[in-house]
Amino acid sequence: MKNKTEVKLIKNRAIIKFEGKNFLGEIGIDGRIFKALTYARISVGVISQQAIENGISVLVSEADAEKAVNCLINEFEQERKSGKVSLIYSISNVSVIGFVSKDFNKIMSELGRNNIFPLILNQVAAENRVNIVVTSSQDEKAKNIIEAEIFARPKTVHLAIIGHGNVGSTLIDQVLESSEEIRNRKKIDLKIVAVANSKKIALNRSGFSENWNEEILVAERPSKVEELIAFSQQNQLENLIVVDNTASKEFVKNYPVLAENGFDLVSSNKIFNTLPISEYRNFRHILNKKNKKYLYETNVGAGLPLIDTIKLLHLSGENITRIKGVFSGSLSYIFNNFSVRDEKFSTILKEAVEKGFTEPDPREDLSGSDVARKLLILARELDLINEFGDIKIENLVPENFRNLTKDDFIARLSELDEVFDEVKNSQQKNHVLRFTGDLHGDLQQEKGELDVKLISVPADSALGQLKGSDSIFEIYTESYGENPIVIMGAGAGAKVTARGVFGDILRLSENK
Amino acid sequence: MKNKTEVKLIKNRAIIKFEGKNFLGEIGIDGRIFKALTYARISVGVISQQAIENGISVLVSEADAEKAVNCLINEFEQERKSGKVSLIYSISNVSVIGFVSKDFNKIMSELGRNNIFPLILNQVAAENRVNIVVTSSQDEKAKNIIEAEIFARPKTVHLAIIGHGNVGSTLIDQVLESSEEIRNRKKIDLKIVAVANSKKIALNRSGFSENWNEEILVAERPSKVEELIAFSQQNQLENLIVVDNTASKEFVKNYPVLAENGFDLVSSNKIFNTLPISEYRNFRHILNKKNKKYLYETNVGAGLPLIDTIKLLHLSGENITRIKGVFSGSLSYIFNNFSVRDEKFSTILKEAVEKGFTEPDPREDLSGSDVARKLLILARELDLINEFGDIKIENLVPENFRNLTKDDFIARLSELDEVFDEVKNSQQKNHVLRFTGDLHGDLQQEKGELDVKLISVPADSALGQLKGSDSIFEIYTESYGENPIVIMGAGAGAKVTARGVFGDILRLSENK
Repeated sequence: MKNKTEVKLIKNRAIIKFEGKNFLGEIGIDGRIFKALTYARISVGVISQQAIENGISVLVSEADAEKAVNCLINEFEQERKSGKVSLIYSISNVSVIGFVSKDFNKIMSELGRNNIFPLILNQVAAENRVNIVVTSSQDEKAKNIIEAEIFARPKTVHLAIIGHGNVGSTLIDQVLESSEEIRNRKKIDLKIVAVANSKKIALNRSGFSENWNEEILVAERPSKVEELIAFSQQNQLENLIVVDNTASKEFVKNYPVLAENGFDLVSSNKIFNTLPISEYRNFRHILNKKNKKYLYETNVGAGLPLIDTIKLLHLSGENITRIKGVFSGSLSYIFNNFSVRDEKFSTILKEAVEKGFTEPDPREDLSGSDVARKLLILARELDLINEFGDIKIENLVPENFRNLTKDDFIARLSELDEVFDEVKNSQQKNHVLRFTGDLHGDLQQEKGELDVKLISVPADSALGQLKGSDSIFEIYTESYGENPIVIMGAGAGAKVTARGVFGDILRLSENK
Repeated sequence: MKNKTEVKLIKNRAIIKFEGKNFLGEIGIDGRIFKALTYARISVGVISQQAIENGISVLVSEADAEKAVNCLINEFEQERKSGKVSLIYSISNVSVIGFVSKDFNKIMSELGRNNIFPLILNQVAAENRVNIVVTSSQDEKAKNIIEAEIFARPKTVHLAIIGHGNVGSTLIDQVLESSEEIRNRKKIDLKIVAVANSKKIALNRSGFSENWNEEILVAERPSKVEELIAFSQQNQLENLIVVDNTASKEFVKNYPVLAENGFDLVSSNKIFNTLPISEYRNFRHILNKKNKKYLYETNVGAGLPLIDTIKLLHLSGENITRIKGVFSGSLSYIFNNFSVRDEKFSTILKEAVEKGFTEPDPREDLSGSDVARKLLILARELDLINEFGDIKIENLVPENFRNLTKDDFIARLSELDEVFDEVKNSQQKNHVLRFTGDLHGDLQQEKGELDVKLISVPADSALGQLKGSDSIFEIYTESYGENPIVIMGAGAGAKVTARGVFGDILRLSENK
């Protein structure tokens, strides 16, 4: 009994290519080719001749390749002299994979996503039989992908996690925790095969488990993207995703080369999307050309469905007229509390630092540049070509505090109190302070207006109602008129950010 | 000069199939096949032989088919008797299409999405040359799709709009308005080729323009799905989407047959997703098998990004613990106003009817079944297998009012006032009334608890703050803890619903 669904792999083959002008379809040429091969006692495998364009390819054992080329050169000596037959040559180091599948297209696109493009592809639909010829350096990877598809085996997705700080390590834990259920429910086998920090990269072909932390401790390879690429190629790994959970300005420089080498990308790192617009667009072209994806839903609003919503509204021709809100969890906490509690600004700020809501140096939050980055990322989703320099940012750190050491700054916090008390007390009645991002102006033009600033709003407005460290985003559009779409919730924190990154990973995995 | 990128189509071909056991690779067999064809003076086009599995296919002119079969039968008389050669036969009515493309996979999946599966496929990677053999009934469609891809021509997406009431006609206008920009920006050419109501269907192969209304007036074909399918086949239309903007219980019965016949589906009609779970799941299996998509973001919350958000959170392993909110624009308006204004319930209700916020018979809103349907749809996104009958619904229409005619009901509205005044006055201080849907219980089990009811909430809570006719959805999850994700905005109305439907159409078109 023959197993119809078995995937067969035959190594050590060679392709004999026969090219010429206007001779195909000519009666007798094919006969002469096969007669010559018969006389030379050469067994022929795949044969591929096209009706349109000239050329015929036959597959022989690698050991017969030279003999086959020679016997055809002899047979067609006249035609070679006249130029009718232009080339007869062989390509060695190929393998043929044969399989039966009803879902041929799915398999071909899985192979394509993994940069495997068969040298010869030969399909006969009635029997769902397919033979492909691939270079031997990709044959095992190709076989794995085909088998996963045919036997409905879980498809393995290989993850490289860059950065294992707060978000990164939470993500690794979430992935390890859910991986069995995802394998069962979605037939996706998530394997973390690389974990890197700024110094070192740990690689594990069969996937890290709970003790990944120890493996990175003893890892010895330098944290270079070349290491990761070489590792993925040597091990013929399919379905590659690199996940950037760093805030590194250096690592984002690797995005293009990773896409070129077959990696999809997921990033919670905001840096890339705020680079000059030329680099932003150039990378999109590479992604498009290489058929790779780059998702970054967590760049703005952590796990809240911001970017996807805005993308889709924009694409459906809905004119987005304004996006406004409180984009920062730490600044949300600080001003939600400062506005209603009878405390000094420095007291609230220290509280926020202690609760871990701010960066270690809270000036990074107070400077407004994190909010500005988020605002710029949203603007660019609307095809606006604003640059970071276009943003009007109100820096809440007075100038004479900007060059202090972190410790000096913390020590002198109370000097800020007077200014903020004044701002608070000069408000209208029943108003509260909010630190907001605001994209407005005529958004049908090339650039919009981007403002990042502290404002005073009525306490009973949507912004005024904000609580805890929640973020809020108001999206105004033409159809929705005065009533914006409002999306609100925890817009920061390692847990929800990691969950958002995980969502992006699954989105990619499902479409792989 | 030969145009390398031209797509060539040769009609009137036939495939000669030669099948047998264990003879391929045997030296000399191929030679004998071609020698026999040579003696019979038959010109051979595509040749396809595989290394693994037995069989060889050659393409000849249709006129030569019979002769080719006969000459091979003669040549292999001995082998046919011994059973070594089992079958020699021809398949007529095929065409061969030849093209050069770097993006072979994309083309194959475009063809597959349109139910075109080549009988023979023959690719030689080095030159990016592909020959495919298809049945002649699909050859023009295949050529169109390939050309659109190769020449980066806008890809035509053919829309059939079922229902041209409020939402349907707004959608048609939006599509006609945006189509040029979408063609330029996204290379997608949206063509509305069918518009139907419950009686008639108007068909227009080249696409309707602003005067579609007149064409449906004079249309004579009965509104049957068979008409639509026949029309799409006769005209070899690719990339088909049927859009259901009706509230019809009848039309949804056609969803499976439409998916079977190559249509993707977009629906603002809630009926299908609230059918018994067996039908719900069965249709998903058909979609999966046929590689078709079914989007219905507007089933809940109109244009608000509800369903996609919930899907993704659920998929990423985030445990959703509760979904709660005001799901109905009309009931939002009624109770937002009744709670704070010193007016009778009947006054407010009449106002809502006059403003067009309710259905013509407001009992359809007050019965709670529309909210119940939305709640059930959300529950099923979480893989819960609840049925409509499981929902506890508070019907706001007293029993003795349920069987009245619509006019009688409207005439006797003031009889409702006493009951609702009592409900309003028995609330705690600073509380307001809201008509809510609430999915709760242990959502890790097979079924959740679904409640639809009128509740009293603090005026300063998120639900209590709701204004106008906005909808609000609170999504509670494990990672977000006590702070839900809140999505709020206009959750009803023809304009935002049509825009949401349009979003779904674009999502499908982009992935086509």
